[in-house]
Amino acid sequence: MQTLQVDLGERSYPILIGEQLIDGDFLSRHIRGKQVAIVTNETVAPLYLERLTRHLQSFSVTPIVLPDGEAYKNWQTLQLIFDGLLAARHDRRTTVVALGGGVVGDMAGYAAASYQRGVDFIQVPTTLLSQVDSSVGGKTGINHPLGKNMIGAFYQPQAVLIDTATLTTLPARELSAGLAEVIKYGLICDEPFLGWLEANMERLLALDPQALTEAIHRSCAAKAAVVAADERESGIRATLNLGHTFGHAIETHQGYGAWLHGEAVSAGTVMALEMSQQLGWIQQADRDRGVRLLQRAGLPVVPPAGMSAEDFLQHMAVDKKVINGQLRLVLLKALGEAVVTSDFSRDVLESTLNADYNALTPSPNA
Amino acid sequence: MQTLQVDLGERSYPILIGEQLIDGDFLSRHIRGKQVAIVTNETVAPLYLERLTRHLQSFSVTPIVLPDGEAYKNWQTLQLIFDGLLAARHDRRTTVVALGGGVVGDMAGYAAASYQRGVDFIQVPTTLLSQVDSSVGGKTGINHPLGKNMIGAFYQPQAVLIDTATLTTLPARELSAGLAEVIKYGLICDEPFLGWLEANMERLLALDPQALTEAIHRSCAAKAAVVAADERESGIRATLNLGHTFGHAIETHQGYGAWLHGEAVSAGTVMALEMSQQLGWIQQADRDRGVRLLQRAGLPVVPPAGMSAEDFLQHMAVDKKVINGQLRLVLLKALGEAVVTSDFSRDVLESTLNADYNALTPSPNA
Repeated sequence: MQTLQVDLGERSYPILIGEQLIDGDFLSRHIRGKQVAIVTNETVAPLYLERLTRHLQSFSVTPIVLPDGEAYKNWQTLQLIFDGLLAARHDRRTTVVALGGGVVGDMAGYAAASYQRGVDFIQVPTTLLSQVDSSVGGKTGINHPLGKNMIGAFYQPQAVLIDTATLTTLPARELSAGLAEVIKYGLICDEPFLGWLEANMERLLALDPQALTEAIHRSCAAKAAVVAADERESGIRATLNLGHTFGHAIETHQGYGAWLHGEAVSAGTVMALEMSQQLGWIQQADRDRGVRLLQRAGLPVVPPAGMSAEDFLQHMAVDKKVINGQLRLVLLKALGEAVVTSDFSRDVLESTLNADYNALTPSPNA
Repeated sequence: MQTLQVDLGERSYPILIGEQLIDGDFLSRHIRGKQVAIVTNETVAPLYLERLTRHLQSFSVTPIVLPDGEAYKNWQTLQLIFDGLLAARHDRRTTVVALGGGVVGDMAGYAAASYQRGVDFIQVPTTLLSQVDSSVGGKTGINHPLGKNMIGAFYQPQAVLIDTATLTTLPARELSAGLAEVIKYGLICDEPFLGWLEANMERLLALDPQALTEAIHRSCAAKAAVVAADERESGIRATLNLGHTFGHAIETHQGYGAWLHGEAVSAGTVMALEMSQQLGWIQQADRDRGVRLLQRAGLPVVPPAGMSAEDFLQHMAVDKKVINGQLRLVLLKALGEAVVTSDFSRDVLESTLNADYNALTPSPNA
């Protein structure tokens, strides 16, 4: 088992990474009260709920099982958590445990932040995406019909437990979606990691435990460092959103759940690479290296066929990165060096939105 | 104008108290961005919205007018705030201003805490209750069908602007409701203030500006000191809830909005006085002094006729002050000295719930 620390003063917490962490007392050691609510979904519950609960016999445990999917990341589903907590009379010393992917973690975290104005919270992420990204750093929330993640809180967990063995039950499409965020860390701040990923992509896709642990550890370490430097995203933390402004526009336009978050981020990252290249900040070969790696991870590298430049602009206007009406984007000054910037012309943005992504995508056999 | 500081490190903020603060640049000086959303309700908007907006001509202002009343302190109404912010494309540098009473302040504050995971927030309370209590200290939230204030956040404003002249438009019943919290400060931590209130109750009820400013200043100073010592209510802050556990049970049982919050707190405070006296901690004369003061303020001092001891116990079981299944109450060791305690028998609690409050109430002419 490997342990990382997210360093946030009195809100610091550990990330535990290893196989079979769901079994044993790894979870119970971080629970301070006597009541526990395990928030999970219909897909994950049959796989892991009973195993996790088996080690909590000295606690009063309330399972809260939500419907599965990004389409349910809304207030109506959040209410099910509050209903469950109140019906079982959980007090303010309860602990909310998120068992599942990013949607479960975001909703359970926001529920923990809001229930009685804040109770303890522990993340047990079971998808690669949530293990390397959403479970670390304290961003929680739900979607609004007019925008993704518009309602939420910065709320740090007591601990994050990453059991790499849970990835054996993850659909291949979701494994790929998680790899989009893994590749992101290489692109924004760890160029050598890109080389490691190029050398180990097949091992990752084959769920080699050592390769997974290495990739997750390196991703979480990158995220923990960025979050420690800028918890509330006033500066450098925004670089974690490489590809996300374009990606959120894709998700909103297609309807939540049609594209997986990681898939939308992948296509959005290709657009950010293209724009960085058009601005002359990275070489065409750099762009193609990123696109090729996303493609090898099984990810889409072309935005939706029916989505116009106008569609993108409309959805991007309500993005959280819009400051005083000015659009800010995460772009690359080099591979491994991201910046948050509004230092680009409207022309370059529109040229990026109108680019022929099918043409720039290298053939899978290239 | 008087100014108080709530001392919370980097989250410190000023409370400004004076006449006609709604006019002038008192508000605009505390706004950091260019966008402002003024959250108010149908009753307050015709009185003060235009006056407040007149001094914000260099900002982009979105008024958001909610229905009036505790019955609307729920998610459906909160959504109206998010809808208004998103429709007008407010970004994360916007400022949410609460113009109204406690319900508006609690909902606008929770909306500010949650919108894009937290934006700036300013309180402009227009009821005595919100001026002396809810606008100071950062408690925000909404009700749930199974419990009052169950969903929310601790979220501090940038500033609190208290315009005492707004009390001239406040119904007498709501002025009295505010006085319940004013009297509370005397009971829990400022015994000399009780003497001042006994000497000045008629001036307060006649809206004498100097008496109001004194009472508000002294109440806010007491609250600011308690909040600075214990922001997240792990200890002493809970003493501010004198009468509130009984009071919340009354509000929940009667249905939100049937009794004003201050009215329920008043009857609840009488119950806390009675229980403290039954425990032998205060004298009968102390109890009667508190009851008499609440009565002179025009407040109910007898719980609802149809509400049984069983009704109270049922509603109190989900109170936020229940820790690990044990009921904790705010009681008085002396006038001016409150404690949070579970050091009482079930018998004394039941005897308190079954007491004949009509009998112990002194005649208005006594």
